[in-house]
Amino acid sequence: MSSQTTPNDNQALPMLIRAFAGEATPRTPIWYMRQAGRYLPEYNELRRGRSFLELSETVELAVEVSLQPFRRFAVDGIIMFSDILTPLKGAGIPLHFEEKKGPVLDQTVADESEMHHLREDFDPGVDTAHVADILKTLRAHIDALPAGTERPALLGFAGAPFTLASYLVEGGTSKKFEKTKGAVFGASEFFHSLSDRLTEHMIRYLKMQIDAGADAVQIFDSWAGILSPADYAEFAAPYTQRIVAALQEYTPRPVILFVGNSAHLLKEMIAQQPRVLSLDWRVQAPAVEREMEAAGALNKMAVQGNMDPLTLYGTPERVRSAASRVLENFAGFAGRGGYVFNLGHGIHPSSPIPNVQTMLDTVRSFPVK
Amino acid sequence: MSSQTTPNDNQALPMLIRAFAGEATPRTPIWYMRQAGRYLPEYNELRRGRSFLELSETVELAVEVSLQPFRRFAVDGIIMFSDILTPLKGAGIPLHFEEKKGPVLDQTVADESEMHHLREDFDPGVDTAHVADILKTLRAHIDALPAGTERPALLGFAGAPFTLASYLVEGGTSKKFEKTKGAVFGASEFFHSLSDRLTEHMIRYLKMQIDAGADAVQIFDSWAGILSPADYAEFAAPYTQRIVAALQEYTPRPVILFVGNSAHLLKEMIAQQPRVLSLDWRVQAPAVEREMEAAGALNKMAVQGNMDPLTLYGTPERVRSAASRVLENFAGFAGRGGYVFNLGHGIHPSSPIPNVQTMLDTVRSFPVK
Repeated sequence: MSSQTTPNDNQALPMLIRAFAGEATPRTPIWYMRQAGRYLPEYNELRRGRSFLELSETVELAVEVSLQPFRRFAVDGIIMFSDILTPLKGAGIPLHFEEKKGPVLDQTVADESEMHHLREDFDPGVDTAHVADILKTLRAHIDALPAGTERPALLGFAGAPFTLASYLVEGGTSKKFEKTKGAVFGASEFFHSLSDRLTEHMIRYLKMQIDAGADAVQIFDSWAGILSPADYAEFAAPYTQRIVAALQEYTPRPVILFVGNSAHLLKEMIAQQPRVLSLDWRVQAPAVEREMEAAGALNKMAVQGNMDPLTLYGTPERVRSAASRVLENFAGFAGRGGYVFNLGHGIHPSSPIPNVQTMLDTVRSFPVK
Repeated sequence: MSSQTTPNDNQALPMLIRAFAGEATPRTPIWYMRQAGRYLPEYNELRRGRSFLELSETVELAVEVSLQPFRRFAVDGIIMFSDILTPLKGAGIPLHFEEKKGPVLDQTVADESEMHHLREDFDPGVDTAHVADILKTLRAHIDALPAGTERPALLGFAGAPFTLASYLVEGGTSKKFEKTKGAVFGASEFFHSLSDRLTEHMIRYLKMQIDAGADAVQIFDSWAGILSPADYAEFAAPYTQRIVAALQEYTPRPVILFVGNSAHLLKEMIAQQPRVLSLDWRVQAPAVEREMEAAGALNKMAVQGNMDPLTLYGTPERVRSAASRVLENFAGFAGRGGYVFNLGHGIHPSSPIPNVQTMLDTVRSFPVK
């Protein structure tokens, strides 16, 4: 049993949290990014006739959506249904979501003259009060599960400053990130100021989530993989590192660091000492071991990942073999640094449910030492 | 002097080719991907009122465009102006280019039933006769340069089977490659058949380019970096490896292998034994050295790369420091395995000419041992 305590420390810690702490668990825990989403018919049912914003900002609807994958699959983690851009909206940036395009920011922060649009005095308890309420409601729901039920962990999250800054500069998602890198390389001072403000916002935002009952929080640096290692070390890592440090000073609950497309950034990610590294499908276990060893972090840091989410578009045999391969590759981390099964990126909208079930079955029947 | 011979072996081999062969050169040679393109005013002048297809299929126009970066910057390599999809059009796939969207294939090859649309009997000398003519004209132009002129190398190229197959399956460019991976993981046999046919096509296509006078040819596997190492080894590497082997049996002229976003694929790329590895900006020199050493390829394989092309959107100081960093990182390859400066991906359309000049000046003034 871990020495960590939570407000519910009279109960056993969730299996997911025990695995993150490097404890041996009876089987490999599993949750997966974007598990509450469009591949679920019950999600589409609730989404019908509603905007994404209505769904994510209405506490009872967001709670229901968050619970859907737990109800259907009994996943080991429940992640709050929200978007990484939610706190930007709370800090003064108007935005909406378009069906095929994704998020569209109605106000960019593309240079120094636009900095004031992102309010400095962002107060997460007020400006994103619904997020606190979603987490508290989910907390209460989990705590009220009948005794003997395997308790899922409650997960909060936030976007990393680099990724959030890229949305603010581009005004939405991007394919080539020309404006982002234009700002990074051409207006470095502005980009650092913006990242600094976002860092302070995200520290407050994640502390609020811990206070509202999250068992762990994940930082999503979805786009930082577009940077070379040297540029990542200059423009992205210092900010996520500050968030990790501030959170881990605030709470013993684990902080998970996810960087998309980051096979080349392992050393720089490990140096930030998050409790858990969340890895995309490009990363191989031996490289993780080598870099952790070099940093003195082996057997002290957990990993989460890393099946290619698009494997779920394949045959059942392909799903089984891909999940087994991931489990075998990372078996050495289970009960040592810690290992939790996940996808390498969010699940895609057309993933067939039977394939998702096959993935879950493969993970659950995988023998642990 | 190299022991390689070319049809012009009475003249000295171009500096670029000598660097690819691992010979010491008086300075670091440079060319860069998409060097003939929209960042050049003289390109836009010629492009005005013409479709991309007209520009690339009219021999005299394509020759003129190919020469533009040489005339302006005296780059060390002239790459023929063409598109990786050109041979697909030659093999029966109608396509056109849209201004913002890029290439659109009017006929996909998304499953077995559509395989026949990609003709098996592709004959590059007939079906892409204009490509042979572009190369022959460029060859004659280079050979006719006044004595004493530093002779640029003539470069041909082809898309890799995985990347071409992704265009055929998706019907164009993609952001998430859902259809491609759906085919890879869900219809593996079809995907292998398609890749096999494309491999035969590209071997013929590149041999034709060698015959037409190319000093070196580059294989572009722009999208294979979306695959995990195991999936790359199963679905992409066997095909580029066949092309490399067939070409290197056919000619001593170097084959360059470029895989986009490939920091996680170095081992698998090196195992294919191309003469030159072309690296994107995520890759670090020590990782390349380690993997080459492990494969017994160190000092036998050249590298090309790898400045982030979007650095060119930055300040002149940033361009200088980024180019210097790349030169310093790869200095150990010069005069041993071989090193040629390049970008990590194609130059972007809004790159300011003065920054391009700064990059060239930085490379040319960098002291070599």
